[in-house]
Amino acid sequence: MPSLRPEPIEIAIIGGGIVGLVLAVGLLRRGIQVTVYEQAHGFREIGAGIAFTANAIQCMEQLDPAIVTALRSSGSVATSASNGVDKEAHDYLRWIDGYNQLDADDPSYQRMLYQIDAGYRGFEGCRRDQFLEALVKVVPPEAIRCRRRLQWIEESGLDERIGLAFVDGTRVEVDAVIGCDGIKSRVREILFGEGNPVSYPHYTHEVAYRTLIPMEAAIAALGEYKARNQHNHVGPRAHLIHYPVANNTLINATAFVMDREEWLDDKQMVAPASRGELEAAFADWSPCVRNVIRLFPEELEKWACFDLWDYPAPYYSRGKICLAGDAAHASTPHHGAGAGMGVEDALCLSTLIMEVVEAVQKEPTLKGAALKTAFETFGAVRRTRSQWLVNSSRTVRDFYHQVDWGEPAKWVKAETCFEELKDRSHKIWHFDYEAMKEEAVRLYRERMEWSRLGGAITMS
Amino acid sequence: MPSLRPEPIEIAIIGGGIVGLVLAVGLLRRGIQVTVYEQAHGFREIGAGIAFTANAIQCMEQLDPAIVTALRSSGSVATSASNGVDKEAHDYLRWIDGYNQLDADDPSYQRMLYQIDAGYRGFEGCRRDQFLEALVKVVPPEAIRCRRRLQWIEESGLDERIGLAFVDGTRVEVDAVIGCDGIKSRVREILFGEGNPVSYPHYTHEVAYRTLIPMEAAIAALGEYKARNQHNHVGPRAHLIHYPVANNTLINATAFVMDREEWLDDKQMVAPASRGELEAAFADWSPCVRNVIRLFPEELEKWACFDLWDYPAPYYSRGKICLAGDAAHASTPHHGAGAGMGVEDALCLSTLIMEVVEAVQKEPTLKGAALKTAFETFGAVRRTRSQWLVNSSRTVRDFYHQVDWGEPAKWVKAETCFEELKDRSHKIWHFDYEAMKEEAVRLYRERMEWSRLGGAITMS
Repeated sequence: MPSLRPEPIEIAIIGGGIVGLVLAVGLLRRGIQVTVYEQAHGFREIGAGIAFTANAIQCMEQLDPAIVTALRSSGSVATSASNGVDKEAHDYLRWIDGYNQLDADDPSYQRMLYQIDAGYRGFEGCRRDQFLEALVKVVPPEAIRCRRRLQWIEESGLDERIGLAFVDGTRVEVDAVIGCDGIKSRVREILFGEGNPVSYPHYTHEVAYRTLIPMEAAIAALGEYKARNQHNHVGPRAHLIHYPVANNTLINATAFVMDREEWLDDKQMVAPASRGELEAAFADWSPCVRNVIRLFPEELEKWACFDLWDYPAPYYSRGKICLAGDAAHASTPHHGAGAGMGVEDALCLSTLIMEVVEAVQKEPTLKGAALKTAFETFGAVRRTRSQWLVNSSRTVRDFYHQVDWGEPAKWVKAETCFEELKDRSHKIWHFDYEAMKEEAVRLYRERMEWSRLGGAITMS
Repeated sequence: MPSLRPEPIEIAIIGGGIVGLVLAVGLLRRGIQVTVYEQAHGFREIGAGIAFTANAIQCMEQLDPAIVTALRSSGSVATSASNGVDKEAHDYLRWIDGYNQLDADDPSYQRMLYQIDAGYRGFEGCRRDQFLEALVKVVPPEAIRCRRRLQWIEESGLDERIGLAFVDGTRVEVDAVIGCDGIKSRVREILFGEGNPVSYPHYTHEVAYRTLIPMEAAIAALGEYKARNQHNHVGPRAHLIHYPVANNTLINATAFVMDREEWLDDKQMVAPASRGELEAAFADWSPCVRNVIRLFPEELEKWACFDLWDYPAPYYSRGKICLAGDAAHASTPHHGAGAGMGVEDALCLSTLIMEVVEAVQKEPTLKGAALKTAFETFGAVRRTRSQWLVNSSRTVRDFYHQVDWGEPAKWVKAETCFEELKDRSHKIWHFDYEAMKEEAVRLYRERMEWSRLGGAITMS
């Protein structure tokens, strides 16, 4: 005879990155018992920027308004309307011909190609480390365990607890595990097996170089308007994107360059680089772009871009183990929506886990089946969209890097990409997360009903 | 002092294909004086099938309900729900693994990959020749001139008439010209210049083989369900599509095969072929597909697929000369939406020309400027979407022809294409033509207002 007292559901989140912490906050607010296991000593990260769409911020709001407060307190600014002049202005994404010098008399002239209105505060950018620091403060300290690097997951029956073994020899038991452990996810490797190509990210054959440039120098290089507003300079086999940060005192500039070689060391995605190789890659580009490249430091680093495009995860859960965020669908950064996709995941998961809580309150023996069903439903609802992002991010990079930008006879052809680019951006920005939640709940209940009927048939 | 009596507007449509005739019917119904100039002796065409989406049929309805009557009287049937059993059934588009033999015990087993619900009567198919024949009957005979092959267009000032010179030596004068003369458009060649790559279609490196197969033989080859319903068999570098026609007594089967060679003769897009070469292209495919291929005639023809992808038209009009339908944006047939895109064009043009009529009634001297503005507005409203179709049709072909379909380790990756395929289909099927009409009218009026203000400034 099962106990009638509602049992708590204990969930382990592997990885204390943005998605892991956002999910933890969302679950804790719903009264779920959650512990985050983070392999690092603390939450210090490189100071790279990260941006969220207005839509992703609405998802955060639904998870817990405290997440949005943390984002804003960490100094998030609307990326493009942050020119300090017009605070109500919409954010625009802009694409500009970065390759051709079109006016001998005015070297700063560049052909404007396209812009998309992303709406009022369409994108908000912040420093990743500052947002993480603010997020950690929202989570009670006892819900976070640092220096816990996952070694193995021990599964037995659906109604048994799951054991987590860490590299330091510690061990815990929980009801379910959610791997938010990023692109190099150990949970994914455990799920799909060591040596399986699905378990690892693969090289996208592009490298990124990033720097911060003082606004005055940026204005001298680009002109006032371009320096103070987001621009994406496109051209053959490379692109340069920049936008103002730090209350318009700096611009954040990132150059992406295609690389025909393989990336030799999968473990280390960063390598030392020189401005010389970057200048060589942009040698034929327009004077403005070359001006910006000259402002990169002489010694810098390049990031190899990896993603999960080549071998996408065929499913996002097995039993009571689930993947979310980059662990499930790490993409290249070209839509500026990778972390936002993980926030959507977190909203979906917390909605489903509330369904599990309700089921377990009525019928405690259902806990294992309900968790498994919730995770399966999560995959059914989220896998298609998140995998689409991985593909689409590659596709828009290919638009930016078209060799046709270098051939005037092909410009008309090259520019036909922007209709798709707009559709793809709108698919991300105008996501109907209410419909997602409804679909998740409906599918979960249908599946639970089937298994209940299946159980009844088995008993008869 | 201009005359106050409204002057008629005389429009020449070059080309009596489906788009030319649909546009003529739409304009005639609105009281516009239209003549269609067709180079052929009559309206006999090869008996190829053509399909329209429910959305395109709604556009026809708006142009003139007589067009829909003509379509239905020509024996159009819902392509996929035409199984004779369930008349209310929705049309589905289905994609199935045509390459791999997955069950040694059941050679007819094929992996179902994806299906999209196109709604009730989502697609209606008919024979092109029969629809044309029915359409011609809607147009008064005096509005059609056959055996008029366009040689040249003589333009002078905006307020002068346009002269049309035909190869037979005849000549007419009109107010405006709309080129609906298809993929090999002479109007496009005149607009962009002889020798300009934009003036000509280019080879897409795929050939199509088509046949009709008796339903009984099709059932023996494919099994009952597949024979009676539309299926798209995908695999490396080729695909086979079939659907029932002729009241379910036949299936229409078309095989598309990639071709690495150039197509030598641009004038002649059809070449003799043998079943042997088709069997060679599908030699490694699943038994069902090979069964169907064996039912093609031993001697047949192959169609080289051409489109306007490589060098898209940078604009759709110049002065009072305009392009519509395939003349403006010929695409490959993989969305089944090429003709429908031309029907949308016709609805946009007839909406805009009614604006011209209104302007000319108030101010007859505006005729030239109003026609030019209407055509410019047409391009502004239509070019992006129609050019997108050309690109998208290539993209979905690349999805069908992925080499990944031949490698089981890449199936999960290959199948991620279907989310895009669905979005792309929905973009075509759920077109908001009311919004298109509103946008066209709004832009046209804005442009006319600017030119009026410009005129006032010039006068002062």
